[in-house]
Amino acid sequence: MYISKVDTLLDSIRKLIRRGATQNVKNIIAKLHAADVAQLFRYLNHNEQLAIFNTITSLEEASDILSQLDTPASAMILTRMDRRKAAELFKHMDPDDEVGILEEIPDDVREEILSYMSVSDTERVEELFQYAEDTAGRIMTPNYFALDEATSVDEAIGELQKLGEGTTEMVFYIYVTDKRNHLVGVCSLRQLLLVAPETLLREIMTQEVLSVRLETDQEEVARVVERYDLLAVPVVDHENKIQGIVTVDDVIDIIRHEATEDFLRLVGTGDEYLSRSIFKRARMRLPWLLVAFIGEIVGIQFLHMFNATLDQIIALAYFLPIILAMGGNIGSTSVAIVVRGLATGRLNVKELGKVIFKELGVAVLLGGLYGVLLFALAYLQFGDINYLGFVVGSSLVISMIMAAAIGTLMPIILHLIKIDPAVATGPFVTSAVDSLGILVYLGLATIVLI
Amino acid sequence: MYISKVDTLLDSIRKLIRRGATQNVKNIIAKLHAADVAQLFRYLNHNEQLAIFNTITSLEEASDILSQLDTPASAMILTRMDRRKAAELFKHMDPDDEVGILEEIPDDVREEILSYMSVSDTERVEELFQYAEDTAGRIMTPNYFALDEATSVDEAIGELQKLGEGTTEMVFYIYVTDKRNHLVGVCSLRQLLLVAPETLLREIMTQEVLSVRLETDQEEVARVVERYDLLAVPVVDHENKIQGIVTVDDVIDIIRHEATEDFLRLVGTGDEYLSRSIFKRARMRLPWLLVAFIGEIVGIQFLHMFNATLDQIIALAYFLPIILAMGGNIGSTSVAIVVRGLATGRLNVKELGKVIFKELGVAVLLGGLYGVLLFALAYLQFGDINYLGFVVGSSLVISMIMAAAIGTLMPIILHLIKIDPAVATGPFVTSAVDSLGILVYLGLATIVLI
Repeated sequence: MYISKVDTLLDSIRKLIRRGATQNVKNIIAKLHAADVAQLFRYLNHNEQLAIFNTITSLEEASDILSQLDTPASAMILTRMDRRKAAELFKHMDPDDEVGILEEIPDDVREEILSYMSVSDTERVEELFQYAEDTAGRIMTPNYFALDEATSVDEAIGELQKLGEGTTEMVFYIYVTDKRNHLVGVCSLRQLLLVAPETLLREIMTQEVLSVRLETDQEEVARVVERYDLLAVPVVDHENKIQGIVTVDDVIDIIRHEATEDFLRLVGTGDEYLSRSIFKRARMRLPWLLVAFIGEIVGIQFLHMFNATLDQIIALAYFLPIILAMGGNIGSTSVAIVVRGLATGRLNVKELGKVIFKELGVAVLLGGLYGVLLFALAYLQFGDINYLGFVVGSSLVISMIMAAAIGTLMPIILHLIKIDPAVATGPFVTSAVDSLGILVYLGLATIVLI
Repeated sequence: MYISKVDTLLDSIRKLIRRGATQNVKNIIAKLHAADVAQLFRYLNHNEQLAIFNTITSLEEASDILSQLDTPASAMILTRMDRRKAAELFKHMDPDDEVGILEEIPDDVREEILSYMSVSDTERVEELFQYAEDTAGRIMTPNYFALDEATSVDEAIGELQKLGEGTTEMVFYIYVTDKRNHLVGVCSLRQLLLVAPETLLREIMTQEVLSVRLETDQEEVARVVERYDLLAVPVVDHENKIQGIVTVDDVIDIIRHEATEDFLRLVGTGDEYLSRSIFKRARMRLPWLLVAFIGEIVGIQFLHMFNATLDQIIALAYFLPIILAMGGNIGSTSVAIVVRGLATGRLNVKELGKVIFKELGVAVLLGGLYGVLLFALAYLQFGDINYLGFVVGSSLVISMIMAAAIGTLMPIILHLIKIDPAVATGPFVTSAVDSLGILVYLGLATIVLI
């Protein structure tokens, strides 16, 4: 079984660390799967993490755990460690994990660690570093298994046996190449078992092999693996020569990460938020709130413009929050639907007209309903002011329809001009909805009531 | 290569359907991967989907495509089809896909279809249906490969060969059972190739085999597969007897689906939203907006309470939107962070104190900054009203801190009392922030200015 709740473990480990019972901590950690240690580390502070990590003596176990930890935690541990030992640990890691962690380590420390590594190890890392962040080239592992198409099944099994125990998990597929190293096919391990030993790979391979390019964006890589139910996808260069593979476990990490990122960007922060200090958190959220602040100051000026109207009918101010809030609510739902739809590919940009039409239809229905409700309320409570109910009811309808239009259009426009809609949409929509809502409401009030 | 953009294909297919060029449509579809057909179907309406589907004559191809389509599309096609043919198509599907689609088909149609299926097929389906929705039992496939621990490697290879070509992709691991069918170990295919043919599975199997229970929630299943980088996880009953497996491609679907669900629930809708009509969309969003509406009506009463204050200093109304909007913004970010953190397991409920402390710290910093800015603005523009700047500045600070507290606490409390925070948090937080913001702002204004 696996540990589904780390809570009890967390308490006892903390107690042991406080008491300095290194040997007991060591015994507990040795019994855990590296992935469970990673889970545990999420709830520990830096000092506790270091205390636990320092009890691990086996190089292999230590590098295994570093590969599983969240990247900032691994980077922190390696940064505070003897450079020579860090270089040694990196040697035991998969190159894709290695690159991910090295990205997070300060430049000077990274240089020092690399200086203790052999030329071939450094080259291997630098090769991956040459590809842009978030591309297949950067996240692939060069540990794939490829054979020439003229290899017999018997020879292929021999090659597999040579690989040794440690790499068992890596072999999902056997990639088949021609004489000039072009990727021409793929075999599953089970296919090897189904035919005579002298059969050539060329005869049994599947020729329709899906691949991605070195520069393919990682989200696109994830979509390919997801859509075609692959366990790994080969990464090829512009000559169709295989350079590495991206495996399904890395794809799961990408999907999870991108979903969280989209989710949090929409509210003006990011995936790393929770591991940051108060000051850094505040700095992450500052620009988003600044846009909202400036937008709302425009709203103040609009209200100021209508001060004569407000002065005459103070009751108009009572309905300001509800008109703006209902607009904001319906607008932010439209934003979330469009942003997520674009991210998952459920919304096709060619179908824009239909999307906008439907969202406006929804806004007309909901705006109409709540507009009538608000009209009724205003009439019952403030019936002495003629037409007040009419003004607040219609303003609510108009403001909700406008909000749905802005909330739908803004992310689509940003997407079309290649700006990430998740980052830029939020505060613009809420403040635009507020300002326009104020204009419509008090404009209408001035015309009808004054 | 795969198709990354369906746009051009979409246009030509549509043209061919309009022209009734069935044979051309058939030729195009025959060349596509079933997953690509599914992608295409997302952008077509029901009539177009049926027109394409009816060109497919091979049973195998048709059921393959049905398995890949989004469930509502498959259910629509099967519901509008001859019941006997539908039953035939189901026979070619994996039981887990079958159950997923049958769930979406109206009860009477389902009964009719099941009546055309053989007793053994019906039983197979009913077996999966007995487990609760969203549990491992419901989503598992019974097509796994298990052998007795006393089987030799040679015999195991013989069994694998017997399985035949069609099931190649299904075999990720060989599960090993004891005499009474308990799950005791697991082998990879490659391990079979590394040892002498007479070796017993018992000798080479990994004994630490991770498994989930029939009643385990699908999100938990996904977490296990994700955390331990598995290709499939066995599902066992209370006696540790293997009943099926959940494969990594299904886990990816779960992760993607849950992320979208969380995202959209937070704004009062759900994953199926985009495939719904205008009326159904409006109905989905109605309750959420109703909560907001009622909350804001409370706000109207608060404002009405302070009508004397507003009547004296009309400028107070100008700052109402900015104070409420900044509170709403900071509050909804806190909500999103906590909801996503709880969903991904990055936030531990035991660390609540720390989370709240940090979020309040952020609110103090950001509230302080924007409070000072608003104070300055109010002083410059409306300096003739003594202390107005002080009142609006401090109200902004207090309202932002309150909003962060509510936005952090509300989802945590809901989580602790086992209500999904994503569903229930949104409108409560925004309307609570608005009402309390109004109270604080006008309360302070009344004390200081009147």
